[in-house]
Amino acid sequence: MKMLIPHMTEAELGQLRASAPALDFLVARDRQEALTLAPQAHASFSYYHPDLVAAAPHLRWVQTRSAGVDNCPFDQFRARNITLTNARDIYGIQLADHTLALILAFSRQLPLLCRAQQRQEWVSRHTFPPGELAGQTILVVGLGGTGLESARRAAGFGMRVLATRRRTSEPKPGFVDALHPPEDLHQLLPQADWVAVCVPLTRHTRDLFSDREFALMKRNAHIVCVTRGGIINTAALVRALEKGRIGGAGLDVTDPEPLPAGHPLWSRPDVIITPHAAGHSPHADTRMHDLLCQNVRRFARGEALLNVVDLELEY
Amino acid sequence: MKMLIPHMTEAELGQLRASAPALDFLVARDRQEALTLAPQAHASFSYYHPDLVAAAPHLRWVQTRSAGVDNCPFDQFRARNITLTNARDIYGIQLADHTLALILAFSRQLPLLCRAQQRQEWVSRHTFPPGELAGQTILVVGLGGTGLESARRAAGFGMRVLATRRRTSEPKPGFVDALHPPEDLHQLLPQADWVAVCVPLTRHTRDLFSDREFALMKRNAHIVCVTRGGIINTAALVRALEKGRIGGAGLDVTDPEPLPAGHPLWSRPDVIITPHAAGHSPHADTRMHDLLCQNVRRFARGEALLNVVDLELEY
Repeated sequence: MKMLIPHMTEAELGQLRASAPALDFLVARDRQEALTLAPQAHASFSYYHPDLVAAAPHLRWVQTRSAGVDNCPFDQFRARNITLTNARDIYGIQLADHTLALILAFSRQLPLLCRAQQRQEWVSRHTFPPGELAGQTILVVGLGGTGLESARRAAGFGMRVLATRRRTSEPKPGFVDALHPPEDLHQLLPQADWVAVCVPLTRHTRDLFSDREFALMKRNAHIVCVTRGGIINTAALVRALEKGRIGGAGLDVTDPEPLPAGHPLWSRPDVIITPHAAGHSPHADTRMHDLLCQNVRRFARGEALLNVVDLELEY
Repeated sequence: MKMLIPHMTEAELGQLRASAPALDFLVARDRQEALTLAPQAHASFSYYHPDLVAAAPHLRWVQTRSAGVDNCPFDQFRARNITLTNARDIYGIQLADHTLALILAFSRQLPLLCRAQQRQEWVSRHTFPPGELAGQTILVVGLGGTGLESARRAAGFGMRVLATRRRTSEPKPGFVDALHPPEDLHQLLPQADWVAVCVPLTRHTRDLFSDREFALMKRNAHIVCVTRGGIINTAALVRALEKGRIGGAGLDVTDPEPLPAGHPLWSRPDVIITPHAAGHSPHADTRMHDLLCQNVRRFARGEALLNVVDLELEY
């Protein structure tokens, strides 16, 4: 059997071959080269655009490099029952670090103080009101890899942690105070001082946060999102901020992305924008390669793969 | 018995009187008025300058409004065996929030990204390297109120937590991996990715961090201090940063303070300066008043006071 892979170091390729000696690895340097090799491929890592899938009649398994799979050709995968595995649990740690960094930056007034530092001005402590997280309520929307790690960190600050998760039958972690099904979102929003959006972008979560949801939030509550643009409706967010409906927004992902110069979100003092940087970590590549080696070994042996995506739920 | 207090709301004064009906409260609106009332006072909240202590022959107890007591007239307190109680445990929560906010801001590159946002520029993720805290080592120097809360939060991020504490006989909290006496500082510094200075300023801790300590730190390690200026020797810090001996510094307190415009620390991209704001929280005043009421009740009943400062150790 043959697996299509992008270029990697000799050391990485060596580890991959050692993980599955029976597998042949076809190295493609770009999408065009991948398309040429596609007819031979039984599996593919990181290449899965529609043309390629159409040109690969033997394709049975696709491994993505990302946690989000919103750009996958699900119709083709469903029609041919191609197994899709993603990179969840690779990014949860740094996405949660970034989520808490944004929350603490708002709570401790770092954007204002960063600008004061640029002016070399020791601003009076009475001109701004830093908060404290202990006793405040965070609503983690989507208790998956990123949500779990965010909830764990928030609990360390003494926050009350509410969360939603589709799979409510799985046990509730001790650091989560209450776990609800996604349908309870609207009844939970009025309780939250902080809303951490941790769901993936799917056809079910597009525009999950729009006018109605912002209207349900506390006027001083903040929303933070590091997973994908499009879950928060940008126009509705701008309306909510301009009308003072919510306290602020910390966004590592936007819609459109990149956020164009001149967009109203850039210059608002109640908004922090970071450029899709939350997934970055010096250890992400190592974790990704470890996962790839494990799944390659499992695939060669015909064992169950890790991180299988539900083709109906699309995550 | 009589207690000197600053102006407070009627509600607060009512709570204070209810806490100790036998005590008379002398309200002084400023230091001069306090000095006039001093001869009658057996106790004093927030007023304790040397002239006042000298003018108060019956003074037996002083309660400060701050956790740090480095500005107290210890010679007078020791000579007359005046009991000093401070506000530790009032500020630990928000000081720890601020400590982690500074650490996460460095780790996730927020100062650089804050400046990019001002330019309305979606910078490439490859131009800066965000880190992740999991697996990194934090050294909490001084496991008191602020140190404990900082250590608890750091553990939630999966960090390895080392700490120093003078009172090593007290039990080690589960979220601290190793607890050492202060004398071990030099052997611990080379292990730390993050150094959180949580000791108070005393004659023993002035210039605790100077050339030798920075030389022992990892070249990419950061130091963070939210307790008092003077514990870190400013000139030595500037030298260490200019020579690239350490990765950066997050300072809510400086020496001199306020940091004057034109000081080299203001403009360094590897330094975050906040203006002695870490102690601020919407709940600090409530916690302070609760502590005051408790100690007033205990004083009136002749019971042991909370937060007694060791007059020899000066904290």
